[in-house]
Amino acid sequence: MYDCIIIGGGPAGMTAALYLARKKMKIVMLTDELGGQVAKAAMMENYLGFPKIVGTELIGRFIEHIKSANVESKIAEVEKVEKTGDIFKVITKSETLQAKSIIIASGKTPRPLGVPGEKEFLGKGIGYCVTCDGPLYHEKKVAIVGGGNSALDAALEMEKYAKKVYIINLNDNIQGDEVRVDKIKKSAKVEILNNAKTIEVTGEQFVKGLKYQDLRSNTEKEITLDGVFVEIGWIPATGIVKDLVELNKMGEIVIHKDTNETSVPGIYAAGDVTDVLYKQMIIAAGEGAKASLSAWKFIVSTR
Amino acid sequence: MYDCIIIGGGPAGMTAALYLARKKMKIVMLTDELGGQVAKAAMMENYLGFPKIVGTELIGRFIEHIKSANVESKIAEVEKVEKTGDIFKVITKSETLQAKSIIIASGKTPRPLGVPGEKEFLGKGIGYCVTCDGPLYHEKKVAIVGGGNSALDAALEMEKYAKKVYIINLNDNIQGDEVRVDKIKKSAKVEILNNAKTIEVTGEQFVKGLKYQDLRSNTEKEITLDGVFVEIGWIPATGIVKDLVELNKMGEIVIHKDTNETSVPGIYAAGDVTDVLYKQMIIAAGEGAKASLSAWKFIVSTR
Repeated sequence: MYDCIIIGGGPAGMTAALYLARKKMKIVMLTDELGGQVAKAAMMENYLGFPKIVGTELIGRFIEHIKSANVESKIAEVEKVEKTGDIFKVITKSETLQAKSIIIASGKTPRPLGVPGEKEFLGKGIGYCVTCDGPLYHEKKVAIVGGGNSALDAALEMEKYAKKVYIINLNDNIQGDEVRVDKIKKSAKVEILNNAKTIEVTGEQFVKGLKYQDLRSNTEKEITLDGVFVEIGWIPATGIVKDLVELNKMGEIVIHKDTNETSVPGIYAAGDVTDVLYKQMIIAAGEGAKASLSAWKFIVSTR
Repeated sequence: MYDCIIIGGGPAGMTAALYLARKKMKIVMLTDELGGQVAKAAMMENYLGFPKIVGTELIGRFIEHIKSANVESKIAEVEKVEKTGDIFKVITKSETLQAKSIIIASGKTPRPLGVPGEKEFLGKGIGYCVTCDGPLYHEKKVAIVGGGNSALDAALEMEKYAKKVYIINLNDNIQGDEVRVDKIKKSAKVEILNNAKTIEVTGEQFVKGLKYQDLRSNTEKEITLDGVFVEIGWIPATGIVKDLVELNKMGEIVIHKDTNETSVPGIYAAGDVTDVLYKQMIIAAGEGAKASLSAWKFIVSTR
């Protein structure tokens, strides 16, 4: 019987594991791959303490840290979490583990465009986070795919660095608050392509362009680019607890914002899998610490 | 006119400054000393990415990071923040600065015991955070000064590492939930000294003991120790905004837990100065990022 099972091996899961291991709790961290989204990042510049570091290298530092604290971790595919009385069962492909408490930090994946070129150029011109990678496109030409608030924010942010910013929007008009829409429409750098359905990201070693279907004229068009940011939403990895804890309409785990408790006492959640407003590595790490401190209080309060 | 003035130079302030500088906002970070509480920490082991690092060295890494992002920072003593129309004024000892938005990350200081030896042995056996420094006292003898929930949590945590844990409690009885009080009373390692008023922390190079007044017998007693943790509360540094934003009864700035907005639109707060439940460096850094992302949205939404 574990004191706590942590599901997920990104910054949230690792910070939670680190805190609980330092408190001498009997824990295990289950993850299908160490590092989460960070491992996929080309160059990280916004995790305080590391001015410029490749995602895989930063994850290497994190792994070294949790190993130094004797965190037990297992590569495992979790299928389901169940509650029986006061005991939680975590069912993986190969075994069933039991614990007094659970921390879910299984993250999210960006909703993919699902077009040719997208996977090939990941980290080579395709990105899913302007706040993370935007500054790398100084004086370059980029496209933001999407037409909602996060796409508009991405465009307003990119406009500060880039030479040219296209918004590739599937619908008739971009959607957002009036001031933002105004600023975007007035920007000399931003060009909005409405009714544009992305059909391919093109390139050789790196992204060189984007092909889209102009849905009004029903013709195929192509623009030349240095980078593409996809801003069409995220898929939280909540399948394993979807019948157990409360999710919001976006499928994110609803947490108490002070304690990171879910709707089920003893189950905590942290990071991008939750309804925390901003999805950022340093925020996820902090949320992992919060969840672990609450889980610890829960563990020591049970007889 | 700045887009944002950040008050405070600990992990929360530095992360906020880093994020806004990367977004090309015109900002300045004002602080009376770079580093906040972290600069006072002996050895840090729980900031993910740095397994073991001296507080001042970690702050050095943070400073290097914000410099690489061209953050403007000033050593300044802020006296007051004022709001005039849509403009915020930050009055320091030497000048008045103006900004569209403010992030308060001025931190807190532990409430001191105010006894001889306390200042002298800071970082040499005196600590204010068991979660941070507890593991350094493996098989040692320590005292927790305090009798409330945080003192009990500290004792329950120290019991895992230490050989002996004293609780030095000023009142008749320790205060806390029944399960925790039970566990502490049953522990073979924990000894509660009620009606004990700490009068001195003794030592040479490092802490060697603690003198207290036994208020029942009115006699002075001494115990030998390797470490003392003071757990009698914190003083948030909110004097500069006390008439401007809502504070809770502990004097902490009340924030919206998703956006870090205070009761005044355009003023955000992050880290230990706020009513965030847990005061930890990695949490403060994440909160700084949250505040900066909200401040950014606020700045770009104003005409």
